[in-house]
Amino acid sequence: MDKVRIIEIRESVFADNDREADRIREGLKRDKTFLLNLMSSPGSGKTTLLMRTIEALKNEFDIGVMEADIDSSVDAEKIAKTGVRSIQLHTGGMCHLDAGMTEQGLKEIGASDLDLVILENIGNLICPADFDTGAVRNAMILSVPEGHDKPLKYPHIFTVCDVLIISKIDVMPYFDFDLEKVREYALMRNPKLEIFPVSARTGEGMGAWTEWLKTQVNEWNNGVKLLTE
Amino acid sequence: MDKVRIIEIRESVFADNDREADRIREGLKRDKTFLLNLMSSPGSGKTTLLMRTIEALKNEFDIGVMEADIDSSVDAEKIAKTGVRSIQLHTGGMCHLDAGMTEQGLKEIGASDLDLVILENIGNLICPADFDTGAVRNAMILSVPEGHDKPLKYPHIFTVCDVLIISKIDVMPYFDFDLEKVREYALMRNPKLEIFPVSARTGEGMGAWTEWLKTQVNEWNNGVKLLTE
Repeated sequence: MDKVRIIEIRESVFADNDREADRIREGLKRDKTFLLNLMSSPGSGKTTLLMRTIEALKNEFDIGVMEADIDSSVDAEKIAKTGVRSIQLHTGGMCHLDAGMTEQGLKEIGASDLDLVILENIGNLICPADFDTGAVRNAMILSVPEGHDKPLKYPHIFTVCDVLIISKIDVMPYFDFDLEKVREYALMRNPKLEIFPVSARTGEGMGAWTEWLKTQVNEWNNGVKLLTE
Repeated sequence: MDKVRIIEIRESVFADNDREADRIREGLKRDKTFLLNLMSSPGSGKTTLLMRTIEALKNEFDIGVMEADIDSSVDAEKIAKTGVRSIQLHTGGMCHLDAGMTEQGLKEIGASDLDLVILENIGNLICPADFDTGAVRNAMILSVPEGHDKPLKYPHIFTVCDVLIISKIDVMPYFDFDLEKVREYALMRNPKLEIFPVSARTGEGMGAWTEWLKTQVNEWNNGVKLLTE
């Protein structure tokens, strides 16, 4: 099994998380590094989707992955097998990452010489949505088995995300999941949300998602426009 | 659609949550009311499992269900259709329930004349595990699509639960899920955990789970022994 570095990160000491997050984004802009914050429930398929995304983009970009978990390093070990830089962040039981914790991870992974860093946030639809990590873009995954009513029950995360990836669409025949309803509910929360239904297993829909991400990274790193402004 | 009462509950004012939780349990013992705290990820099938559990036990017991959510009342509306007493608790964005919040719910539902009250906690594997709600027993659901590595990544919830229900076993052929591994990992966290693999859809395994719950409720309410002692 590949050995990965495990970093114990600590809750931020910064009183103003939003200002700290803005400061992180300024640094990323200077370093031409794009940070994606990927959020979801436990078991939505974040790591598998990430592995396929890395395969599609690793010839274009120098990529790093920060796996945040309460415990274990199973995800970082899987990611390490793809050949990209990977570290495991342990939050000491904390249910989310804030800007200061993210910054500790960025330093440890050496983000400044990477084009794209992906933060796999703690599996939780609630708390991570309350903290700006300093990411350039926020993405969330909702997997088919979780059901199409989630935008009704967990509204906030849908409002802070730029992208909704609907994962595991290959198992749609076995679940009572209505793709049109989830679109309707999600866009009700956030009309600007980009929505990509995908199956990391079959590859369906993965091209549209990775193309979107590629464009975002290039725009940010080449300074065509400062998208967060 | 059935109308359900929505209660806005507030974060507890009690400094010592554990003492407050013990006080709730003493009251439940006096009233011969069993409180089950049911926790899981979003979309693990808590509500569907609950509906089947109610069907199996509603002739034995007077049952009430408290559905806790950040927003919406879709779950409480589904439960109301089973004919049992049901209320929706809104936590105002909070990611868990503490003892004080649970107590507000128990008052609103009129728990003292019920035999069994089930609290469907917020969909979250992390924060709810940190707070004793005053329940007599804690149960958690892990659904097959979430994967068998969850006890490695979310250790704490497995240690505070008496029961692990492995749900959606009917879709096992479509997922890379190892039932023996999840047993091994879960028992490593908590050797006393009772484990019930079930499918609420096909009914498989539901009898063993509802029999266990029935025995627990009878023992608590008839005062055969004070199980938490």
